[in-house]
Amino acid sequence: MKIALDAMGGDYAPAQVVAGTVEYVQQGGTAGVVLVGIQDQLQPLVTAAGLEGKVAVVHAPQVIDMHEHPTKALKEKKESSIATGFGLLAREKVDAFASAGNTGAMLVGAMYSLRPVEGVLRPTISTIIPTADGGTALLLDVGLNSDCKPEQLNQFAVMGAVYAQEILGIAQPRVALLNIGEEEGKGNLLAQATYPLLKENSRIQFVGNVEGRDIFMGRADVMVCDGFTGNIILKMAESLFPITQREGIQSPYFNRFNFENYGGTPVLGIQKPVIIGHGISGALAFANMIRLGEQMVHTGTLQKMSAALAS
Amino acid sequence: MKIALDAMGGDYAPAQVVAGTVEYVQQGGTAGVVLVGIQDQLQPLVTAAGLEGKVAVVHAPQVIDMHEHPTKALKEKKESSIATGFGLLAREKVDAFASAGNTGAMLVGAMYSLRPVEGVLRPTISTIIPTADGGTALLLDVGLNSDCKPEQLNQFAVMGAVYAQEILGIAQPRVALLNIGEEEGKGNLLAQATYPLLKENSRIQFVGNVEGRDIFMGRADVMVCDGFTGNIILKMAESLFPITQREGIQSPYFNRFNFENYGGTPVLGIQKPVIIGHGISGALAFANMIRLGEQMVHTGTLQKMSAALAS
Repeated sequence: MKIALDAMGGDYAPAQVVAGTVEYVQQGGTAGVVLVGIQDQLQPLVTAAGLEGKVAVVHAPQVIDMHEHPTKALKEKKESSIATGFGLLAREKVDAFASAGNTGAMLVGAMYSLRPVEGVLRPTISTIIPTADGGTALLLDVGLNSDCKPEQLNQFAVMGAVYAQEILGIAQPRVALLNIGEEEGKGNLLAQATYPLLKENSRIQFVGNVEGRDIFMGRADVMVCDGFTGNIILKMAESLFPITQREGIQSPYFNRFNFENYGGTPVLGIQKPVIIGHGISGALAFANMIRLGEQMVHTGTLQKMSAALAS
Repeated sequence: MKIALDAMGGDYAPAQVVAGTVEYVQQGGTAGVVLVGIQDQLQPLVTAAGLEGKVAVVHAPQVIDMHEHPTKALKEKKESSIATGFGLLAREKVDAFASAGNTGAMLVGAMYSLRPVEGVLRPTISTIIPTADGGTALLLDVGLNSDCKPEQLNQFAVMGAVYAQEILGIAQPRVALLNIGEEEGKGNLLAQATYPLLKENSRIQFVGNVEGRDIFMGRADVMVCDGFTGNIILKMAESLFPITQREGIQSPYFNRFNFENYGGTPVLGIQKPVIIGHGISGALAFANMIRLGEQMVHTGTLQKMSAALAS
């Protein structure tokens, strides 16, 4: 198994990408790591880190900056690390691709450089939500689909449930609709139309609506919503850890909101694992991205999602 | 000036309603307080609290429970404390009405027992957001309008700005659109269509989009969004204080998320002040509800909103 890593992506690339690779290798990781980036910059780091012979370097002379227009950049910078990574993935030279670089370019690449999965209306991205009972929930969509149709949310529910099973290790994930009331019939037009679809969906264990107050409470393992709502929740949640730090709060619970550690979010509903890391990713995050890619390949998570949606 | 208080509304009514009235009177409050509720229950509490002759009691023999259907309850329980309170307000016997009882009944009452304000597309409710820089921002709508049109958000912006000026004391409130990207053109269809309206709106100082990460950061004084998104944010924010308590965290910032203290949210875009308190309101919250009603009457906040929308 080979995992490609965009060595030029993120605020602390390439140094922290290499450091994360070292961490992964030292902790016994067995997947082959392919670092994609500017050879002249990478090779000395790889050598200094003692990774010579343990990882592959694929030269990509261009870099897509954080603020470039995604589609335009991918089109014009065909030799960028991101375009090269997707090329490796599409040609099956690697099994997964991760980057903490330009998020938009990663999303565009994920959706257009791989063949679409039959039956998937729209790919989606999710986030981990640390819950106050010590558990971990999944929220999706968190920004890829800012306007959604009920059928899309119904698919997100299935994809989220498979992810929770395969990656979070939750045998029977409880799936909920994020809403603004507890009873069926509550909510905006989208939520009202989505509820019956989820209720009828035999591939998930639907537990009804959850509200904003329930998000951190572990009342559901998978929570579905449109990408506008989900993105605002994600970014609110991301703002909590810096606030606790500034307030001098030491809290095991709020420490779990340090999203730097999570290793990025995979794009769900596509053919192969593509993992999008946070711009501020450090070594631990990069190591975790490699591990997540490995785990997704190993468990066949994306294939199981396709199968669940087709059934 | 007279402020009517639903003495039967809320988990700790009527005892805490009376206690809140005592607090208000003892701290020099000068508005007349009218307690609406079951006389046999109220009179002994009023006497014991030494409020005899200082407040009025209006007998209302029925109570609308927290879980009753709002429209049905208001129709069937015409002698309930909520229906009676709205009657007093509509007949101009009091200048404002506050309750911590059935939220739905309060909203229905606010919208249908008072004459609508010309030019207001939809009334709205807001919440205070404590910001990490020590300030206070306003978020609206937080649940009254789960599906919104751009023109409605544009009005919420004006109403929010007037509220921030008159009640929060912010001379030149910065108004932002809550969105999932910083640049114009980002967001769901609603946000995309709302941005140009806000930008063109000369009655507000529009500062562009803010994202989920900015909500607690004080980047804007007034943030507008649809009521679905806003309600989820409000309830998430409300869940933070209990979490910090359970985690044993002592933090001046997170203590400001104890919404129990705020004294409820007014319905904006109607003729007279109607204040909806939290079900768990205690004495301080009730005292604050009276003060808020008084301040709204005193400043003519609702009249100024109408004027701003008509201009």
